Formats: sequence, C-alpha cells, structure tokens
Amino acid sequence: MTAPFQHVALIGLGLIAGSIALAQRRADPSVRVTGFARSAQTRATAREIGLCEVFETPADAVAGADLVILCVPIGAMAEVMDQIAPHLKDGALVSDVGSVKRAVLEAVVPRLPTGVAFVGAHPMAGTEHSGPHAGFATLFENRWTLIVPVDGKRSARSDQIAAFWQGLGANTEVMDADHHDLVCAVVSHAPHLIAYTMVGVADDLRRVTDTEVVKFSAAGFRDFTRIAASDPTMWRDVFLTNKDATLEILGRFTEELFALQRAIRTGDGEHLYDYFTRTRAIRRGIIDAGQDTDAPDFGRAGAKGEDT
Amino acid sequence: MTAPFQHVALIGLGLIAGSIALAQRRADPSVRVTGFARSAQTRATAREIGLCEVFETPADAVAGADLVILCVPIGAMAEVMDQIAPHLKDGALVSDVGSVKRAVLEAVVPRLPTGVAFVGAHPMAGTEHSGPHAGFATLFENRWTLIVPVDGKRSARSDQIAAFWQGLGANTEVMDADHHDLVCAVVSHAPHLIAYTMVGVADDLRRVTDTEVVKFSAAGFRDFTRIAASDPTMWRDVFLTNKDATLEILGRFTEELFALQRAIRTGDGEHLYDYFTRTRAIRRGIIDAGQDTDAPDFGRAGAKGEDT
Repeated sequence: MTAPFQHVALIGLGLIAGSIALAQRRADPSVRVTGFARSAQTRATAREIGLCEVFETPADAVAGADLVILCVPIGAMAEVMDQIAPHLKDGALVSDVGSVKRAVLEAVVPRLPTGVAFVGAHPMAGTEHSGPHAGFATLFENRWTLIVPVDGKRSARSDQIAAFWQGLGANTEVMDADHHDLVCAVVSHAPHLIAYTMVGVADDLRRVTDTEVVKFSAAGFRDFTRIAASDPTMWRDVFLTNKDATLEILGRFTEELFALQRAIRTGDGEHLYDYFTRTRAIRRGIIDAGQDTDAPDFGRAGAKGEDT
Repeated sequence: MTAPFQHVALIGLGLIAGSIALAQRRADPSVRVTGFARSAQTRATAREIGLCEVFETPADAVAGADLVILCVPIGAMAEVMDQIAPHLKDGALVSDVGSVKRAVLEAVVPRLPTGVAFVGAHPMAGTEHSGPHAGFATLFENRWTLIVPVDGKRSARSDQIAAFWQGLGANTEVMDADHHDLVCAVVSHAPHLIAYTMVGVADDLRRVTDTEVVKFSAAGFRDFTRIAASDPTMWRDVFLTNKDATLEILGRFTEELFALQRAIRTGDGEHLYDYFTRTRAIRRGIIDAGQDTDAPDFGRAGAKGEDT
C-alpha cells in the first residue's frame, strides 16, 4: 500500500509531533518528515535526537508538504496558520492534533488558501510528559484518533487522513466538531479539571503535610496527580476553548456531588451503595471494550496511561 | 527471626484477608492461618483455593489465635466483636484492616475482654476486585500499612503488629486515629467519591452514548472508572464512618472547583496556567518518593494500582 502522504510537515515539535515522527519512520521510512518549532531549544533537541528534518522557519518546513499537521496549543493555531498559509502547496491537506475541535475549525478554516483543504484530527493519546524527547513510536497504537471534517461528513480527504493515522497504529472514527467537543468534555476535559482541583486542594491543606500526601498517595490520589501533571499551556487552552461543554459537564458533576455529600451527611447508606453499584458496571464495560486491563498486579512494575 | 504471631485468625475472607493468607504462607508457612466468612459461598471458595483453614463459626476460627484480624466492612465490626469476644485467647491481640480508624476504635475497644489488646492497622493496598479469589501474595509489598494504636502511641504491642505487616512486605508508620482519618480523607476517600461522581455523571448523559464513553475512556476517564469499581459496601461504610473529614475535604474541593470554573467562564487563562503549573510539581514529588513510575509506555501492558 502506498503511504497516503509522501511528505508530512509537523508544526510544533512536542510529545505528539515527536511520536508522529517516530511512528511514521517505523511505519514507512520513505515518507519525508519535516518540522518546525518556535523555540530554538526545542529545534535543537529535535535535531539532536534525529526526530525529522528541522527547519528554522515554518515556511521552509511546510514547503512542498502533502500533509501539514498543526501540533501547537490551540491558542497558537491562528498565528501559525497566518505564517504558513502563503507557503502551502496547492492541493495540500492541513490537519491538527488539538483536543478541542470547534475552536480549531474557527481558527484555521478562514485562513486556508484556495486549493488547500482542512480535516481535523485528535489522537486520544498522550502522557503527562512534554517536549520532543517525550515522544515514542508506539504512542498511538490501538488508541483512538477522532477525525473531524469541517462539515462533519466523511469524504475522500477525511479517508486519507484516517488512513494516515491507521498507518501509525491508531483506530479512527469520524465525528462532527460539536459532538467531539462534548464527548471529550465528558471523558477527558472535565475529569482533568477535577483531578487538577483535587491535587490543588491536597497541596493547600496544612494539617496534612506535603510529605504525607506524597508518601501515601498510592491510595487513589496518585492517579489524580498523574493526570494533573499534564502540560499547563495545552490544558489552559483546552478549557478556554471548550468552555461551554466543560462548564456544562462540571455543572452536572457538582449537582451529583452535592447529592452524594448530602447522603453522607444524612447517613443515607442506601443511596451511596446504589450509586457505587451502578458505577461498578461501567468499569466492566471498559474492560470488555479492551481499553484497560483487568490484571490485579497493577501500578507497580507498569506505569499508567494518560491521554488527552 | 521468629514470626511475631504463631496463629493468625482472619474474620472475613475478601481481597485483603485472602492476600494476608497468601503473603503469610509465602513469608513463613509454619504460621497457622485460620479463617471465617459469613457467606457459605465465600467459605467454599476459600476452601477450594486452599486459602487457609476455614471454620464454620467465628468462635472456632479465633480459638487459640495469637492475632485476630477483623477483615470485614467497618459497619460489621461491632457485631463480629460480640461474636468472637468470649472465645478470644487470653493475651491475644485483635487488629483490623479498615480504611477508617476512629469508628473502628469506637466499635471494637468497648467490646474487648480483659487480657485482650487492640491495635488498628490499615494496609493502603487493594484493587477494584473483591472476594477471596482476588487476593494475591504480593499485594502489600512496598505499600504502606498505617498502624493505629488506641492511644496513638507506639508500644510493644504496636511494634508486634508492625513487625507482622513488615513480614508481609509492607512499610509501616504509626499514626493516631484522627490524623489517620484526615490523611485518608485527602489521599483516598475524597478522591474516591469524586471518581464515583464523575463516572455517575458520564453514565447519566444521554447525548454522549454509553458506547462512546466506554470506547473513548482512555482519555483520563478510565482511571476514574477503575477507582469507581471498588467494593460498594466497603466504600459506603468508609463514607458513613469518616463523615466529617470527608465532608470537610469535599467542601474545600468544591470551593477550588468553583474558582477554576469561574476562571474558565471569565477566560482567565493566567489563573488556570498557574494552578496547573503548581499541581505538576506535586506529581514530581510522588515519583521521587517511589510511589509511582515515570515510565511513558503506561496503561497498556501493565494495569493500574488502586488502593484504599
């Protein structure tokens, strides 16, 4: 099978771009991968580890590319588009890896030159580490990459970017931007904000020492700290750009939390028991769907997944 | 070194008791382990897998034991004490594995016969699975077991139960009951309630299908579902018996969550960025303390830890 794109340009060289470069080389080393990062330090690191051909300007990085992937925080996408638009090859496809899609469409689509198309993509994979050195070739394997066409509909162009991600090991699904943003608010954005909050609260408490929080963190809290260690710039932009869906889910969350707090306060054990029994069944569904393992000897030798 | 106890009796044969039996056999097979469970099904399973000598009454299980460990939900401890008290050997030590300590002291201490002492213990280890078949010998290895004496002070008796847990691979630390309950509210009980809540919210949403929630759960939500799959009875009792500390932490949590929601609503990116940067540093402390790993290829081959 011919690779769907012969020349891929990556704008921004962090964890995701680094992993794309490594996964692409493993899948098909004949595909040319070029890249640019705003920070001279990041460009130097990317060169040092031989991630891809690194250029000094975004214009040089995208010249001649069939596929240009914007791997920058959502808040930086409009500016990047202004820089690269005049240099995009006629017939090129622009895509991205942002965790929010309506905001990306609004930033990118009006800036596309004639003859250049856009299809969004969101690889739901990541770690709490950042930077080009954090990338690894297997990051996308058996993970979902959501494909988000401008009009929400499958087309030859969306099939092409889906084939690209499948080539890196990902499963793909087409979704429209608004539904994408709601699904991600539920499974990712709200849980991240909640984890950030809980970790901040623990840090604030003076009667439980920092040492104790750290020492005894295995007791449930550890997973929260891992989630809450994710890149601050990226997550700031996620919440600012997926504001409505996130706030809606958080509103529902607060409502439920208050009901459970009330059950605790009034000693309503039945309410608690029923709620906890219901949530247990959901876990079973996730294991059956192959998105986690049921193995009991967890959390020691192996580490944990975290995704955006 | 002589084992600190020659005959250990386990009342309740779930995940923790099962793991104690297996870990004890691995550490020193000469120690006699007897047990009782209320459910005939559980007793049959425990016999089938050869967990320990299983008796038909709690009285028979504790007869002659040097150490009796209550491995039942906190709400069942008073009743169990009433059943076993007349049958405890003079000079025996009673202990437990409950996740809350003030309530256990209140249930157990007034029921102790003369000549029998109590020192509480809380192994901060577990999985989301329940039952005797869920136990495994390495569950406590390199995990903390908090030792909670009635008066909060170290003694020959507390050293003896600490030595027992160290023999099973655990690290130990002595703590008084109220401080224990506050620390656990922060690192375990409040995070669990929050995870239960978030999973319940996702399940309630009709616009995001169950299939989507399950399918895309890797994106942060997965860790919440694992935590929220824990034993409903045990957790009901935790919240009912550690009411004040849990509600206090949840109150602080809600306060912080509202501040972050407000920052999202008003577009205060600086507030979000600063908060997320602060929480990231806490994660570093946990990795440095050896309570989690920094490895990037997480959450696939290996599974996850979860603890009470």
